[in-house]
Amino acid sequence: MKFATQADGTPDGRLMVVSRDGRSAVPATGIAASLIDALQRWDAVQPRLQALYEQLNAGTAAGALPFDAAPCLAPLPRSPQWLDGSAFLNHGRLMERAFNSPPIPQFDTVPVMYQGASDDFLGCQADVPLPREADGIDFEGEFGVVTGPVPMGASADAALGCIRLVVQINDWSLRALGPREMQSGFGFLQAKPSTAFAPIAVTPDELGDAWAGGRVHLALHVQWNGQRFGEPNGREMNFHFGELVAHAAHTRRLSAGTIVGSGTVSNAGGAAGSACIAERRVIEMLEQGAAKTGYMKFGDRVRMQAKFADGRDGPFGVIDQRVVAAGG
Amino acid sequence: MKFATQADGTPDGRLMVVSRDGRSAVPATGIAASLIDALQRWDAVQPRLQALYEQLNAGTAAGALPFDAAPCLAPLPRSPQWLDGSAFLNHGRLMERAFNSPPIPQFDTVPVMYQGASDDFLGCQADVPLPREADGIDFEGEFGVVTGPVPMGASADAALGCIRLVVQINDWSLRALGPREMQSGFGFLQAKPSTAFAPIAVTPDELGDAWAGGRVHLALHVQWNGQRFGEPNGREMNFHFGELVAHAAHTRRLSAGTIVGSGTVSNAGGAAGSACIAERRVIEMLEQGAAKTGYMKFGDRVRMQAKFADGRDGPFGVIDQRVVAAGG
Repeated sequence: MKFATQADGTPDGRLMVVSRDGRSAVPATGIAASLIDALQRWDAVQPRLQALYEQLNAGTAAGALPFDAAPCLAPLPRSPQWLDGSAFLNHGRLMERAFNSPPIPQFDTVPVMYQGASDDFLGCQADVPLPREADGIDFEGEFGVVTGPVPMGASADAALGCIRLVVQINDWSLRALGPREMQSGFGFLQAKPSTAFAPIAVTPDELGDAWAGGRVHLALHVQWNGQRFGEPNGREMNFHFGELVAHAAHTRRLSAGTIVGSGTVSNAGGAAGSACIAERRVIEMLEQGAAKTGYMKFGDRVRMQAKFADGRDGPFGVIDQRVVAAGG
Repeated sequence: MKFATQADGTPDGRLMVVSRDGRSAVPATGIAASLIDALQRWDAVQPRLQALYEQLNAGTAAGALPFDAAPCLAPLPRSPQWLDGSAFLNHGRLMERAFNSPPIPQFDTVPVMYQGASDDFLGCQADVPLPREADGIDFEGEFGVVTGPVPMGASADAALGCIRLVVQINDWSLRALGPREMQSGFGFLQAKPSTAFAPIAVTPDELGDAWAGGRVHLALHVQWNGQRFGEPNGREMNFHFGELVAHAAHTRRLSAGTIVGSGTVSNAGGAAGSACIAERRVIEMLEQGAAKTGYMKFGDRVRMQAKFADGRDGPFGVIDQRVVAAGG
């Protein structure tokens, strides 16, 4: 199944079921008011949502309309928790060199993860208001999962079974603010403004063979101001999503609707480019002696779209955002 | 005004107005369904809540009942964000010595703050289920504030004006898990299970002269298994709550209902004791060469109550919790 969220004046928005081909959508009226409502009552509503999805795909759903991603909110405009890992060790090791930070203990055996703000997510085409270019404005292309309820202490296998949906994420970052927050040991806060999401959240089966081993085997095509930036593939994730969810649930239960991110998608070797500017900059430092690429300016755009190995568009739709001056 | 939250089967619970003397309460039926609902519509509902509060204090409120704190949920059982500072530098400096961690950059000029989980808070007498004693179970007595909406980039003065409520907090911590998470730079996650709250949230005016300079001038009396542990006073906070809220809002807007904590209340000199075990342990290390106090065991209780300088009970009610084995 595929889901999107339409603005309706409520904090959680209205749940829409989107057709497999992404061309039409129908409100889930009478089944679930919002995606978080559906996730909180998943076992009860899943069969009815599935039936509506099949009607929509067959062209027989009453009230179906052409699907327009532009006005969509994030699939979950707010969620109980947003926890972001750094599960592509290639990225993490490069970032250590970029920030000249000490090696993270047990980096290859224990996931690292920060708790982000989850009350104010951005839609796929929402402008991104930020206070200062000097803060080092960067995008981060990621994949993520949305869980059902996860009991405290769940194993990685059990946690994998708690995954309900897969999403595509742009985890906006302010690089000038990150190092001090890392050095404090208290983690990212000012360095992480509101996170954005591609318009469509999908059940894992929509990925077919591209959902394997708890990983998203799709290339994340990133363009900055219309120029190719990279297309790293999610298959190189060093911890799978079940491991990340289990890490998050080690000492707490997770509420239905918790979002767990992969961290910046990153592939070894460099041929696939990067999914954030900071990673390109450290590669420039290592290969050319200095970073030559600057961070984003107000007015800049970033576009992110996942693609299957055969070139077909991924199921999440497109993130296409512009950075603007806050209050401007 | 004083508020508490009664369980009613909804995630946010039912808003109760509590009398000034803490002896009676009345549902805010017809004014606001829950405390978060009231905070989201504060300007519209505040006069009606105030009128109900005055009726309750005068003994004329219809439907008033004796107030029982025991079954209360946290005033906000969930909130948009939970951000916890470490604004008592006496505590922070001792903790650096306890964990042998490097000095935090700009510790005396820029607040440090971590983002906590805000979807699953504990009530004042709720048992605290945790997986292992070996994780180093510790309490942390704190004060906190609940904000209205705060715009991105608000000044400390403006942020101070956005504070709607003051609360008393027990920020449960697992000390064995903290150092690795600090060293990762990504901050606390497994080290911070669900946070607990005293039953009553109050508007700042309820503190009288004890709300001054953006600080709570009350002693936080802490007992562990019935034994005195400390009574440090909130007045020694090195950053005031307006500064903490402004720090949180530097690159993001805050939604109404955001909770910002002080960090462990701590006083210089040692005579006031401590509000967490880790601080007592490092004082023992410094004064006696080794920590002799262990962390909490399953079955242990902690009690926290704020008091005015003249010995009167503070307005928040009592936190009195027992640690239990998860799933036990």
